[in-house]
Amino acid sequence: MARKDEEFVKEIPKKAENFSEWYTSVILKTELADYSPVRGCMVIRPYGYALWEGVQEGLNRRFKATGHMNAYFPLFIPESFLKKEAEHVEGFAPQVALVTRGGGEELTEPLVVRPTSEAIICSMYAKWIHSYRDLPVLINQWANVVRWEKSTRLFLRTMEFLWQEGHTAHRTREEAEEETMRMLMVYKDFVENDLAIPVLTGRKTEKEKFAGAEMTYAIEALMPDGQALQAGTSHFLGQNFAKAFDIKFLDSDNTEKNVWQTSWGVSTRILGALIMTHGDDRGLALPPKIAPVQVVIVPIVYKEKEAVIEKAKALRDLLEKDYRVRLDDRDEYTPGWKYNEWEMRGVPLRLEVGLKDIEKGQVVMVPRDGSGKVFVPEAEIAETARRMLDNLQAGCLKKAKDYLDSHIFEASTLPELKATLQEKKGFIKTMWCGSLECELKVKEETGATSRCISLDEHRQGPCVTCGKPSTDTIFFARAY
Amino acid sequence: MARKDEEFVKEIPKKAENFSEWYTSVILKTELADYSPVRGCMVIRPYGYALWEGVQEGLNRRFKATGHMNAYFPLFIPESFLKKEAEHVEGFAPQVALVTRGGGEELTEPLVVRPTSEAIICSMYAKWIHSYRDLPVLINQWANVVRWEKSTRLFLRTMEFLWQEGHTAHRTREEAEEETMRMLMVYKDFVENDLAIPVLTGRKTEKEKFAGAEMTYAIEALMPDGQALQAGTSHFLGQNFAKAFDIKFLDSDNTEKNVWQTSWGVSTRILGALIMTHGDDRGLALPPKIAPVQVVIVPIVYKEKEAVIEKAKALRDLLEKDYRVRLDDRDEYTPGWKYNEWEMRGVPLRLEVGLKDIEKGQVVMVPRDGSGKVFVPEAEIAETARRMLDNLQAGCLKKAKDYLDSHIFEASTLPELKATLQEKKGFIKTMWCGSLECELKVKEETGATSRCISLDEHRQGPCVTCGKPSTDTIFFARAY
Repeated sequence: MARKDEEFVKEIPKKAENFSEWYTSVILKTELADYSPVRGCMVIRPYGYALWEGVQEGLNRRFKATGHMNAYFPLFIPESFLKKEAEHVEGFAPQVALVTRGGGEELTEPLVVRPTSEAIICSMYAKWIHSYRDLPVLINQWANVVRWEKSTRLFLRTMEFLWQEGHTAHRTREEAEEETMRMLMVYKDFVENDLAIPVLTGRKTEKEKFAGAEMTYAIEALMPDGQALQAGTSHFLGQNFAKAFDIKFLDSDNTEKNVWQTSWGVSTRILGALIMTHGDDRGLALPPKIAPVQVVIVPIVYKEKEAVIEKAKALRDLLEKDYRVRLDDRDEYTPGWKYNEWEMRGVPLRLEVGLKDIEKGQVVMVPRDGSGKVFVPEAEIAETARRMLDNLQAGCLKKAKDYLDSHIFEASTLPELKATLQEKKGFIKTMWCGSLECELKVKEETGATSRCISLDEHRQGPCVTCGKPSTDTIFFARAY
Repeated sequence: MARKDEEFVKEIPKKAENFSEWYTSVILKTELADYSPVRGCMVIRPYGYALWEGVQEGLNRRFKATGHMNAYFPLFIPESFLKKEAEHVEGFAPQVALVTRGGGEELTEPLVVRPTSEAIICSMYAKWIHSYRDLPVLINQWANVVRWEKSTRLFLRTMEFLWQEGHTAHRTREEAEEETMRMLMVYKDFVENDLAIPVLTGRKTEKEKFAGAEMTYAIEALMPDGQALQAGTSHFLGQNFAKAFDIKFLDSDNTEKNVWQTSWGVSTRILGALIMTHGDDRGLALPPKIAPVQVVIVPIVYKEKEAVIEKAKALRDLLEKDYRVRLDDRDEYTPGWKYNEWEMRGVPLRLEVGLKDIEKGQVVMVPRDGSGKVFVPEAEIAETARRMLDNLQAGCLKKAKDYLDSHIFEASTLPELKATLQEKKGFIKTMWCGSLECELKVKEETGATSRCISLDEHRQGPCVTCGKPSTDTIFFARAY
């Protein structure tokens, strides 16, 4: 019954040689996701969905700690609602899926499958908000959304995707601005500390901002192929939607005012960043905090099966108190096959235990980072596991942070920007005058788009394109 | 700033006098849900969504304990897929919403917005399942589904609703049958123990079963107006979908076989049952296990505000270790207004603490069941809270169980069934020969539909309609 030790991880293309094929291959082989029969839609398989549940948990905890509650709004939006905010409809209209028939009949007004929920949520806020006492409204929604994409890639860009979208309403501009930045920082905190993906934070240009927002802020990660990936956005909506949807409240000074709003979102795309950032030629490598299985126990059974399995179960019971543990006691696979399998699936820590180990009062512990196997006396297992997992989490972040830090390059002219981008892939930090023309010219000449304007740095310098004096430090990169 | 004590719960119609208006009024006033601008779609507001999160938690825990994992499949199903299983398409085709335009273009094949996911999931299982080693597949999905309904009611019947749908594939008929019953019992356990809603379990008739299933089992609850509510279903699909979608595996005997399947679901409709079962003239009444807020603390502040708030916070910190606690320290509302508000919202237990209480070393505890206020010495607060909450949970179930037990009536002829149904609303237990004709006749004459066939009782008796000898004990009721 036992299969041969196939070393099937060799079937995964080398990450450094063919990054794109490596990415798809890892996702399919580790059963994170699969293509579906519907063009552009993916199936998130149990192992991938467990990662998404980890994201939900990590974000929900932070959303709750900052006073937000979850709710659920309809999937369908009357087409006319989308049109109420001018910029918003312009941005989303080309991308929508339309329901035109229902219950066997033609609809009088087509329904848009939500590409984002500002329109439907604002229509409800107009109904719910009357007084300053009703503010702030701090609501988040976990939902599926649909955007008709021409070309799609697993996790990174799919026609339907899962996300959370926060929608808040405030009494003053200042409060809404604070909220916008608070949620940007919540995202940064989650992505860096739980997913071990370091990010730049900054403001989007007018061209790159959310359709309908006054300002968009983003966290931007850098993938190993030197392309940037927008991992989360937080929008200050100003009063744009409040005016379009007539969301008013009576303030304590007895005058009627429009609310100030924010919205912010993170999607299943973040899992694409997670896979790309930490994976290697052996497959996935998951930071312990997000790993669905943190410790896998593989019993080495040749003889005295019962004693070994019993010990393995005792180890599981011990570690299960603090970690997500999987005991792989399947008969039909060899230990070697299991090692490969769980390495490929990115489980941070493996425990091996056989009869010889039991006799010596030890186990073998193998961290996923390739640092090698360690013999650990029984009494030290829990403590060693804790230390190893902490080290693995820190190691994932450090490696990614070193990569990011060493891939931010400066350029002060367009030819320099172009040359740097070709030689050394990554973020190009430069100055920009703020004009759409200069921004477009960079894209045209280099293929790089503006990723974000620095929030911290305000120095004087010549615009990378036109040379005029500028005060915005901006990051360009090729991007997903 | 303080509002007058409005006793606004008086605005809720009496439950016994106008049950239907009472139901809608409670939902709107406690902000569980709201109507949306899209016909037939509802908005689940934060307080209502917190209940749904409780359902998700309670079911997820049980699903995981029985070996299931969550996944996510596409919202859209190619129309041709729905047509592969003949009964299935016949059942669902009249109810579907169709996407016919996407990205500004007419689609060559319309996409069905999923009314249920057998079709799309089976198409993936055909791809994933090859060997008996791949079985069983035990997957659940939390998702939104759309069914075009003519008349809708908040939670009970909405065009879009949230649910979970389990879809499993097995090696043998026996395994799949076992799974079907296992999940039926998981539902019964959750609904009775967490939601305190007692249910009948049984098999659906051929007429009432799921379109495409071989057998459907259901849990059936009885609402206070005497109408039954189907609260969850578990389907044995046999090999119907496996054949339609060509899901085959190579068994250990080296022959190719179709898998055996099940599917099972519980939806947001269950929250309608929760509201109706336990609510009263003062509003919602929530069993502690599902209550988003289990204990509300209301500080009585007239003077020495700081000392009282400090004590209230200490109480919160004490109770928060074990319970979901809300400290309502809002200045703009009076204690009396807050009592009404939280009673209306169904919070099981209220703690009041004022300066006098602090001096006496006590708090006031008021359970939501109307049993009256109790002065509790500080040292006994945690223990008393535990006891009171346990009692409340048990009390909710007992009251509902007494009601159910006293509303199951027997009838042996159609005139008797009709008369009993008119006089005493509830389930009518009777015998049935198994013919569609006899079942339809009951509906026609009485408005009652068959709810379920008993799994336990197998006695001989005359069919309620035709009088022929029968062995099926069946329950009829008017139903939601």
